Amino acid sequence: MVRTETLERILTAAFELGYTTNVTARTLKTSVSRAVGVVVPDLTNPIFAQIVRGVEDVFDRFGYSTWIANTDDVAARSEEAVTAFQQRSVDGLVLATARLDDPLVARLRDGASRTPFVLVNRRSEDPAVRSVGADVFAAIRLAVDHLVELGHRRIALLAGPQDTSTGLHSMQAFVDAVDGHGLPRFRDQFTECSAFSIHAGFDATRAALRHASPFTAVVAANDFIMLGCLDALAQARLRCPEDVSVVGGNDMLFADRISPGLTTVRIPFYEMGVAAARILERSMHGEPDPESSVALQPSLVVRGSTAAPPGRAGR
Amino acid sequence: MVRTETLERILTAAFELGYTTNVTARTLKTSVSRAVGVVVPDLTNPIFAQIVRGVEDVFDRFGYSTWIANTDDVAARSEEAVTAFQQRSVDGLVLATARLDDPLVARLRDGASRTPFVLVNRRSEDPAVRSVGADVFAAIRLAVDHLVELGHRRIALLAGPQDTSTGLHSMQAFVDAVDGHGLPRFRDQFTECSAFSIHAGFDATRAALRHASPFTAVVAANDFIMLGCLDALAQARLRCPEDVSVVGGNDMLFADRISPGLTTVRIPFYEMGVAAARILERSMHGEPDPESSVALQPSLVVRGSTAAPPGRAGR
Repeated sequence: MVRTETLERILTAAFELGYTTNVTARTLKTSVSRAVGVVVPDLTNPIFAQIVRGVEDVFDRFGYSTWIANTDDVAARSEEAVTAFQQRSVDGLVLATARLDDPLVARLRDGASRTPFVLVNRRSEDPAVRSVGADVFAAIRLAVDHLVELGHRRIALLAGPQDTSTGLHSMQAFVDAVDGHGLPRFRDQFTECSAFSIHAGFDATRAALRHASPFTAVVAANDFIMLGCLDALAQARLRCPEDVSVVGGNDMLFADRISPGLTTVRIPFYEMGVAAARILERSMHGEPDPESSVALQPSLVVRGSTAAPPGRAGR
Repeated sequence: MVRTETLERILTAAFELGYTTNVTARTLKTSVSRAVGVVVPDLTNPIFAQIVRGVEDVFDRFGYSTWIANTDDVAARSEEAVTAFQQRSVDGLVLATARLDDPLVARLRDGASRTPFVLVNRRSEDPAVRSVGADVFAAIRLAVDHLVELGHRRIALLAGPQDTSTGLHSMQAFVDAVDGHGLPRFRDQFTECSAFSIHAGFDATRAALRHASPFTAVVAANDFIMLGCLDALAQARLRCPEDVSVVGGNDMLFADRISPGLTTVRIPFYEMGVAAARILERSMHGEPDPESSVALQPSLVVRGSTAAPPGRAGR
């Protein structure tokens, strides 16, 4: 590009005139700002704070700054954040907000800008798009296996939003696990939550208690949804775990100190941020990557929210 | 400065040659990167995530990027982070890591760089240094008043590190409140924690149980220290609140869901981040500020960890 070359010449002349080089000048000269932008729904959700911390720890070591933007899961705000980061010539992007069939991901993949990017916690249908997430199929299998071992056969699912990879894949994994164990399928066994939030989990549980056939256990898409579920069960005077067992996902901060202690599938979010940063860093330097997508292995943490089903059938 | 003017002329010429302006070019031209750097001990501590979220929400509206750095409360890493931010010509700094008599604060106050900055959650002894924090005296008074109302007279303090303003002022406030109520002072009534952490709270409580004269209630400098205190009490087979009442500070995420529910003094950390950002923004634009230091008002949240003292004297 001629224009860039000319600008470089002007800047080189400027430096020869005695200007001390600084990071900003380098940015203009080479279009490399030595910064990465991280887009998260909400930094006050501990899982995203852990991811960002992992990203920052890696890039700090390489001398890169980490810039953040919160979107509250509003698609337009992800677009704005990425545009703002690109105007500042970030060297790479970490997106924790991707939806399935996300026009922003398509724009980054196909666009002229060619900003390297990696999805974190979410994946794309497109195998060319790099991502780091948890193995959702393994996570759901751990949850269902645990409940089956305790004697449960009628297990309901509080699914995450179905326009997210984590929400959709959890649903598929749940059907696989239930069928694999030969467990009964029943009416309104799956209830989709409108968000990964306490409030959405509360509403979905109330709907399930009204409409679904009897169940003795619930798999919740994450710990926030699980907390909403526990609230709704308490409101319906159902005891956890005596009447209904609940398994969550993430093992978020203080999951061990909440009452009952959350039985949950632990996802290593800090490590997820670290892995995403490493993949992005290699991609920024044009290094080939052995694998475009990394799925971290979850582990089951058993606490007080699960027990054998009540003697009587159903709830 | 001649050099800046010359550089500006060169860049103006470059733009006239047809270069589209971009944020990086503007940075070089005016030394304004339209970015602020936030230095926190650890983003995965929910109080700092809330502060950063508040800062980002304000500066996003002004078209500024928010850059973050974690220091794990290591002084040398705060220095490094600020230096890195200054090399990138940030327009302002928010520091959540300041110590009393902090050489970094002195350098920022006296240095040639003149980067506007504001302390958040911590204050400086120097009235010229801008800061936003909670009214620590009011917070401790709320905690002690609550315990006195319940009938407690022998109250111990788990103090924060005494080289932080929050730690030192809490201690002073506690002495004032205890004396104000005419409560007895006793041997080893104050135990200093080495950090604002669960682990430090655990160790300090074990020390207090070994060395201090009997007490029926504890004021903990924050909720992390309080959680460590609850663990140490449980290990010593002391029940909370039946044997010992405990009041914490911050009202952090899930304080209402932990068992026993934490009676704690709520500090509005998101609002603290918002207030710090507004003060910094005015300072960056050279606007005079009516007040250099803002102290946000805390409020008491009563839950399960406090009750009347046991019938027998002492523990």
